[in-house]
Amino acid sequence: MTSTAKLTGVIPPVVTPLDDDRSLDVASYERVINRLIDAGVDGIFVLGSTSEVAFCTDELRAQIMREAVRIVGGRVPVLAGVIDMQTPRVLAHIDTARRAGVDAVVATAPFYAITHAAQIKKHFEILGARSELPLYAYDIPVCVHTKLDPDMLVDLGLSGAIAGVKDSSNDDVAFRRLALKNRDAGEPLTLFTGHEFVVDGAYLSGAHGSVPGLSNVDPEGYVRLHKAFQRGDWAGLQLEQDRLAQLMEICLCPRGVTGWGAGVGAFKTALMLQGVISTNQVPEPFDALTGADVDAVKLILDKFGPQA
Amino acid sequence: MTSTAKLTGVIPPVVTPLDDDRSLDVASYERVINRLIDAGVDGIFVLGSTSEVAFCTDELRAQIMREAVRIVGGRVPVLAGVIDMQTPRVLAHIDTARRAGVDAVVATAPFYAITHAAQIKKHFEILGARSELPLYAYDIPVCVHTKLDPDMLVDLGLSGAIAGVKDSSNDDVAFRRLALKNRDAGEPLTLFTGHEFVVDGAYLSGAHGSVPGLSNVDPEGYVRLHKAFQRGDWAGLQLEQDRLAQLMEICLCPRGVTGWGAGVGAFKTALMLQGVISTNQVPEPFDALTGADVDAVKLILDKFGPQA
Amino acid sequence: MTSTAKLTGVIPPVVTPLDDDRSLDVASYERVINRLIDAGVDGIFVLGSTSEVAFCTDELRAQIMREAVRIVGGRVPVLAGVIDMQTPRVLAHIDTARRAGVDAVVATAPFYAITHAAQIKKHFEILGARSELPLYAYDIPVCVHTKLDPDMLVDLGLSGAIAGVKDSSNDDVAFRRLALKNRDAGEPLTLFTGHEFVVDGAYLSGAHGSVPGLSNVDPEGYVRLHKAFQRGDWAGLQLEQDRLAQLMEICLCPRGVTGWGAGVGAFKTALMLQGVISTNQVPEPFDALTGADVDAVKLILDKFGPQA
Amino acid sequence: MTSTAKLTGVIPPVVTPLDDDRSLDVASYERVINRLIDAGVDGIFVLGSTSEVAFCTDELRAQIMREAVRIVGGRVPVLAGVIDMQTPRVLAHIDTARRAGVDAVVATAPFYAITHAAQIKKHFEILGARSELPLYAYDIPVCVHTKLDPDMLVDLGLSGAIAGVKDSSNDDVAFRRLALKNRDAGEPLTLFTGHEFVVDGAYLSGAHGSVPGLSNVDPEGYVRLHKAFQRGDWAGLQLEQDRLAQLMEICLCPRGVTGWGAGVGAFKTALMLQGVISTNQVPEPFDALTGADVDAVKLILDKFGPQA
Repeated sequence: MTSTAKLTGVIPPVVTPLDDDRSLDVASYERVINRLIDAGVDGIFVLGSTSEVAFCTDELRAQIMREAVRIVGGRVPVLAGVIDMQTPRVLAHIDTARRAGVDAVVATAPFYAITHAAQIKKHFEILGARSELPLYAYDIPVCVHTKLDPDMLVDLGLSGAIAGVKDSSNDDVAFRRLALKNRDAGEPLTLFTGHEFVVDGAYLSGAHGSVPGLSNVDPEGYVRLHKAFQRGDWAGLQLEQDRLAQLMEICLCPRGVTGWGAGVGAFKTALMLQGVISTNQVPEPFDALTGADVDAVKLILDKFGPQA
Repeated sequence: MTSTAKLTGVIPPVVTPLDDDRSLDVASYERVINRLIDAGVDGIFVLGSTSEVAFCTDELRAQIMREAVRIVGGRVPVLAGVIDMQTPRVLAHIDTARRAGVDAVVATAPFYAITHAAQIKKHFEILGARSELPLYAYDIPVCVHTKLDPDMLVDLGLSGAIAGVKDSSNDDVAFRRLALKNRDAGEPLTLFTGHEFVVDGAYLSGAHGSVPGLSNVDPEGYVRLHKAFQRGDWAGLQLEQDRLAQLMEICLCPRGVTGWGAGVGAFKTALMLQGVISTNQVPEPFDALTGADVDAVKLILDKFGPQA
Repeated sequence: MTSTAKLTGVIPPVVTPLDDDRSLDVASYERVINRLIDAGVDGIFVLGSTSEVAFCTDELRAQIMREAVRIVGGRVPVLAGVIDMQTPRVLAHIDTARRAGVDAVVATAPFYAITHAAQIKKHFEILGARSELPLYAYDIPVCVHTKLDPDMLVDLGLSGAIAGVKDSSNDDVAFRRLALKNRDAGEPLTLFTGHEFVVDGAYLSGAHGSVPGLSNVDPEGYVRLHKAFQRGDWAGLQLEQDRLAQLMEICLCPRGVTGWGAGVGAFKTALMLQGVISTNQVPEPFDALTGADVDAVKLILDKFGPQA
Repeated sequence: MTSTAKLTGVIPPVVTPLDDDRSLDVASYERVINRLIDAGVDGIFVLGSTSEVAFCTDELRAQIMREAVRIVGGRVPVLAGVIDMQTPRVLAHIDTARRAGVDAVVATAPFYAITHAAQIKKHFEILGARSELPLYAYDIPVCVHTKLDPDMLVDLGLSGAIAGVKDSSNDDVAFRRLALKNRDAGEPLTLFTGHEFVVDGAYLSGAHGSVPGLSNVDPEGYVRLHKAFQRGDWAGLQLEQDRLAQLMEICLCPRGVTGWGAGVGAFKTALMLQGVISTNQVPEPFDALTGADVDAVKLILDKFGPQA
């Protein structure tokens, strides 16, 4: 197990390459992960939304964690999503994650059954108390339909329940408030943004790192972004971010599908076009991007993607 | 396996009684189920929202199905929820359900990852094609944040993918439209309403039965409601429904908790007060109702509940 | 001024016929209103959502009220919408309505600026206290994005602030709860449903009447529905309602436009096809239905509409 | 009329001071506006959400514009909100604004009646075509419940319909996309952010200025922020922004009221405490902040507000 005590920087939410029959394509997975580490990322995050966690059976989840831990081999920390509806089911995933040897776990607010503020806080408190691994809170209202409150998150950090936050809430006002409250409380939390388009703004607000799905396609870009942040080169940050934002349009160009299938479908298509993974297969009920949608991704990738 | 070919009538979504340590209280479960069957219900539905499906681990889900099948012993059909985020995970639950010996399965639209109309339809088509058991679609936007389209549902019925719909969408306009379209298409679907407050209106719109959580507490009432519907006694329907609607206020009276915890918490509290289950324990992160909330449930139960 | 003390029955929300240049087509308006009264409606409601209140300038609103009062000539009560964002602007419309000679006013919850429970209640209390005319609360969350609470509405009825409710909330659970609480409180409120598809279910829940936009197209149908309700003929109610629900599909058949433009566009198109109004013109930024959308309306109107 | 051709920088949405009887407090209004201009703002925006536009009667709206134009006396451009539900009503406000002598108008997407993409675009096209004054689009989904699409906005800029955008959408991803698309199209639009908490991030994304309600309370702060941006001093920007974000907590500290009443109530309370306006009166149905809420505002203002 790798220390996550001061985990900051770029932590890609790794895509899950599939064979045509939708089993894990281990050879492609090795290429994806090794390329990320070679690019200088600070950790990897498996079984997040980008990793198809909502689709993976428990068997596939366990396989993904085992393979990721094996491939990474301690070079960087491995974080794993333990995404499920309510506390008892999440606790079961935490147990599997611990046995798979990952370094930290990432959990969302409860979903499906309607849950309000007091229960959301208790959910994280229970998870934190019973997890031997560091716990990160994943704020993703577009998936779970509740927003995590900044004051609650800082309280959870102060009590030791959570080590940090991955913010995918697209609420930059709340993120600034969280960062300021965290600073006032002595920085109990490390804060990551999941928004590929505005990592520079998140750094300005107080982020310690990023978890951008697009870093599967351009890990060097996001690593450069983080280094520019570390040396206070805001003009450089803005320039790199503008390019990455334009590259991120691959997720918005598909016409044959929208939502999750467009986003992850585009990441996988770009990785296929880059020769990193074998196919752009996605899980049911989605279909891989084809035809004009692949062409559209290619056009943007050629124009704004990483240079060979 | 019991035939579900013409399943209509009252199908309670059975609560899951827990011991203080939150394991399944089998003795209480036997009392709950036997009481329902004695009252004349037409089937039972386990692992729905009321049954705490979002909270149950896979092991507990399997145990619940096995025990329910054993207790029921073929007297009525057993339907089981196979609720999970996306198609592959739901398919895994369908497999477990089949092995547990239930008679039909009930699945929602995909959730967590954003999914639109084409994928929602494909989701049900895949489930229907690969399930040996009849499949019911569970329309519950408050949990999954999408509403199932009436035209799609009728198409899925005509193609044989689904056998019926449990409607918990609180959209009586869409339900009337669904019932009329279903009738025009030759009634491929059996339609159930999940709204305890307005089962009479759903019958008027074209429902074939009901799946009311409150029937755990007052099964005779909902059976009488269905019989009044069968003989066209609308004045009787309205009278019984008004009483049941007033009884259903137990779910809205708690002050210490809202949402799911108030609703199922109140059902379990009423069952405890009726001597049917041993405790009103609920799963984490919720707590059982206590004190003034129990008193409030008792007051309503005494006034509007079933008479001894 | 006509008494609204015991106003019940069918109160059509009257469409606002426009000339090609989008000024009020008074001759068509006379035909629309006289036809409604001839069919036996119990009142008319001008300047509701169907009447294009959100589009009408203040001058046009005043003209509509004056013309409606003149045309009706005391035969039935005239209710007028006083729809605007917040209390002071609504009060100004109430003053205009009073001077125009209408019999009652209809106001929504405040909108645009975010307003919570205490302010919503105070809003209606202020309007009720300062209006010489009876005030009806218009519950239409699809437009104002808040739902009126049943307990609050009954309280407002008991205090004399409001005389009744027009429910267009598509929440039949809340409507049943409102009706039962109103009955327990001694019926301070008269309750109307605005949902064309399920007026029968609303009667079963406790409605005293309906305000269906479709009654512009088929006033006799909704009057028959009310009479069937009055004599307790539920089989007749269901049969008439099923036909009207199928006719209401005119609002869902347009392909060239959705939302408000499809609904009111279809009502006006049907009225044009029936020879009641001269054109199916709608206000900017909408365009009148044309071509295939008119044909689709005609097909449904011919099949399910009123017989000559 | 003052040129708005290259309007950038800080444009406060000016509060509307009221007397105790809720009429316009002209003396206080003079102090508010003169203080803003003395602080170096680049324009003022009257009749926005902060200015209570949703509450002001038409008479009060006209008075506010006349007084603002008189007080400003051509020193900076005056923008005026023409906020109303649908196109014809907005056109009427544009006419009033033109006669009042303001320099530009600001309109939202249509609201109340449901309107989709094609009509939203047409709405702005009609407004732009018929307005003699430059038109700004106001993107405020929290009030109007639709988000303006970046591609549509750039198209409207290219066609000359709109001159710029005030973004209060709290969607920094969409704002970055808008800024990049605008740049690619040759900067037809000037872009302003309305989010007090993250103006620095908006500058990084491509904003040309800000419209922060909090600049009523601390105009020098936001002017310094803009000047730091102009000279590329990102460390200075971040420092000033952090302080202003902490000051903005005045809008989140009230306990007696939430939503609009807390935000504008806090601005007015701070201005009263600063001696700029006479009372912190707000329009009906809201009440002025009192007691502990005033104390909470004072505490934050003393700690993070502008120094004497």
